[in-house]
Amino acid sequence: MGGKPPLSPLAPASFPDLPEIGGVSFATVAAGVRYQGRTDVMLCRLAPGTSMAGVFTRSSTRSAAVLDCQDKIGGDSEAGAAILVNSGNANAFTGKHGRASVEAVTAAAAKVLDLPQERIFTSSTGVIGEPMKHDRIIAKLEELDGKLSAAGISEAAEAIMTTDTFPKGSTVTVEIGGKPVKIAGIAKGSGMIAPDMATMLVYIFTDAAVERSVLQDMVSALTDLTFNCITVDSDTSTSDTLLLAATGASGVTVSAEDTAFIEALRTVMLDLAHQVVKDGEGASKFIEIHVTGAQSDADAKTHALAIANSPLIKTAVAGEDPNWGRIVMAIGKSGAAADRDLISIWFGDTLVAEKGWVAESYREEDGANHMKGQDIVFKVDLGLGGGAATVWTCDLTHGYIAINADYRS
Amino acid sequence: MGGKPPLSPLAPASFPDLPEIGGVSFATVAAGVRYQGRTDVMLCRLAPGTSMAGVFTRSSTRSAAVLDCQDKIGGDSEAGAAILVNSGNANAFTGKHGRASVEAVTAAAAKVLDLPQERIFTSSTGVIGEPMKHDRIIAKLEELDGKLSAAGISEAAEAIMTTDTFPKGSTVTVEIGGKPVKIAGIAKGSGMIAPDMATMLVYIFTDAAVERSVLQDMVSALTDLTFNCITVDSDTSTSDTLLLAATGASGVTVSAEDTAFIEALRTVMLDLAHQVVKDGEGASKFIEIHVTGAQSDADAKTHALAIANSPLIKTAVAGEDPNWGRIVMAIGKSGAAADRDLISIWFGDTLVAEKGWVAESYREEDGANHMKGQDIVFKVDLGLGGGAATVWTCDLTHGYIAINADYRS
Repeated sequence: MGGKPPLSPLAPASFPDLPEIGGVSFATVAAGVRYQGRTDVMLCRLAPGTSMAGVFTRSSTRSAAVLDCQDKIGGDSEAGAAILVNSGNANAFTGKHGRASVEAVTAAAAKVLDLPQERIFTSSTGVIGEPMKHDRIIAKLEELDGKLSAAGISEAAEAIMTTDTFPKGSTVTVEIGGKPVKIAGIAKGSGMIAPDMATMLVYIFTDAAVERSVLQDMVSALTDLTFNCITVDSDTSTSDTLLLAATGASGVTVSAEDTAFIEALRTVMLDLAHQVVKDGEGASKFIEIHVTGAQSDADAKTHALAIANSPLIKTAVAGEDPNWGRIVMAIGKSGAAADRDLISIWFGDTLVAEKGWVAESYREEDGANHMKGQDIVFKVDLGLGGGAATVWTCDLTHGYIAINADYRS
Repeated sequence: MGGKPPLSPLAPASFPDLPEIGGVSFATVAAGVRYQGRTDVMLCRLAPGTSMAGVFTRSSTRSAAVLDCQDKIGGDSEAGAAILVNSGNANAFTGKHGRASVEAVTAAAAKVLDLPQERIFTSSTGVIGEPMKHDRIIAKLEELDGKLSAAGISEAAEAIMTTDTFPKGSTVTVEIGGKPVKIAGIAKGSGMIAPDMATMLVYIFTDAAVERSVLQDMVSALTDLTFNCITVDSDTSTSDTLLLAATGASGVTVSAEDTAFIEALRTVMLDLAHQVVKDGEGASKFIEIHVTGAQSDADAKTHALAIANSPLIKTAVAGEDPNWGRIVMAIGKSGAAADRDLISIWFGDTLVAEKGWVAESYREEDGANHMKGQDIVFKVDLGLGGGAATVWTCDLTHGYIAINADYRS
């Protein structure tokens, strides 16, 4: 590896001040799974009665840890639970050895933490296709257990990093029935999503009490509006995992109709999703793509993702080139319904093209000015119906090539 | 534009010696549609009785010229036909102005060439969204008509270039019933396919006599095995056009069962398709991806294209990194059926992964050696069934970013 990549120019000024969440404690340790001189394992313990919900990669080559989490996520919450994450090795494409590693780690953690093995959730992120030295993790479990602290969430955010250039955290406190309910989350990921070391992992905690099936429905629906609306390079990890834990420690019970809670959770998830894009490999600009007027919301998202994933558009943004023709191209190739002569396009607030033709009012220098900013907004109206969607991505720069053309050497 | 890009390192040593095809003549001219100091319009005249077949972009924002060709391609061949192509302006996303340009050019050409307007096929390639100065083309029609020559095909290949770094031609002569039948074709394109100036245009000529519907079936089927199996950057042009003209001048009639002719045509089409990939923007390596053992041929092609379009794989090839994990990732995300623990992967002839695990015999230096070559071969066996497919692409380099991030400036 040719040295640590520089901090993303889109990184937030600082890591947010995340509150302690009742019923949640953290510990981290340097186990030397692959990295030296940094923490690479984090343990999170969740109090008895915590509801757990999760969303996982749809890859057909998903890792052993993901398969194990999927098996366990619907289980009973009486005993509490634990989340154990290592960076440095993804334990993916490791066949029966991979399954054996997960079995060994979860069995050992269950014993040390005095929890049922079915309540130990693991994630692994790092190189794939190499056997994981899980003994190094197991050897640190007692130490991790002894260090558990309600205040350790920011250290946890650092221990799970791989190619990330900054740790990612977000929090919202919302008042429900006159009582504060806290939500705090951490994430890692800097490609969407490189299988080597840029897997996206997200862990969100709340002290609300939420019934498991309700929690699962919430996180599934909100993922479609947040993490499933971001893309860095159209690639998908074998290990993407999002876990949401509701401890109930606030004493406030949240139902499926509780829009204030849902909105707060959406805010945390979207913030974390945006931070992943802003740490996109080589990213120099953050791009929002807003499509309206499609025949359906699904069509709008198809168009928006075709724009977001087009290498020609992403390179044009990198070059600050107001090349609206490439947006027309992406709409055309997306496969969703479009009528060339009804399409209108804006760069920020500047109308660029109107009903299939360059707008009379458009001056190239206005488009060029918008492209010089760090936050790029493309709006597209298809003029066909009421479908709308918004997605987020970053530009494609020499930095992306440099990071990915020479990653393992 | 920051100067002409250097010749692709994958370019053939020289332009092939293309034979004259009875019934076909060419002329080129410098009309100054956009470029200065080079030819930018080519006219091809086809003798009465020539069968015409075509394949066109499926983009929903396709250009006025493409829509016009699609309307005309099934028409009567008694009078002969003409193909008129300009580079420099794609006449795409130009609304009613675009239709008016095609109408004006085809009407003028019909008059000069004394052909029905329904037999004038046009293509335009270059910047999109700008009105085309079609008067400049019309002003040169008399001159073009006067220059028509059976020997002009290599000049035609040059006149249609945009960002291409070399002209593309291919020929095969096949003996049918003891008589030689000639096939010769030219192509342009160097992204798959940038809408500005890297649209793919292909024109193929034969002196065989082929009934129109037979010719159309042949070219449609062979396109799926050739041009639809290449990708440079997953982007699709608004203007892609392939026209195939069979003049019958050889006196040899070819039927749908004539496998020698079909194989010869496939060879010309595949050669031209490979040349387009080898002129891929920034390409430094040619990549063949061969997938076997899929549940169906369609599944095999889905996996192969997921590998071919993955920015992470294309950058790994650019960096000569034998990163087989990224191939597992691409298979996983493709959406087609795969079982992680049955997948085997080869780099060239080196077995890298076997049934879901790194092969015991694999040494990283063998993989690294294969990646140092200019011709990279990935073989994947899914172990599920008899489906197979082969696709071709190129690597993703700093050159691609440089060309596309600063194209219009």
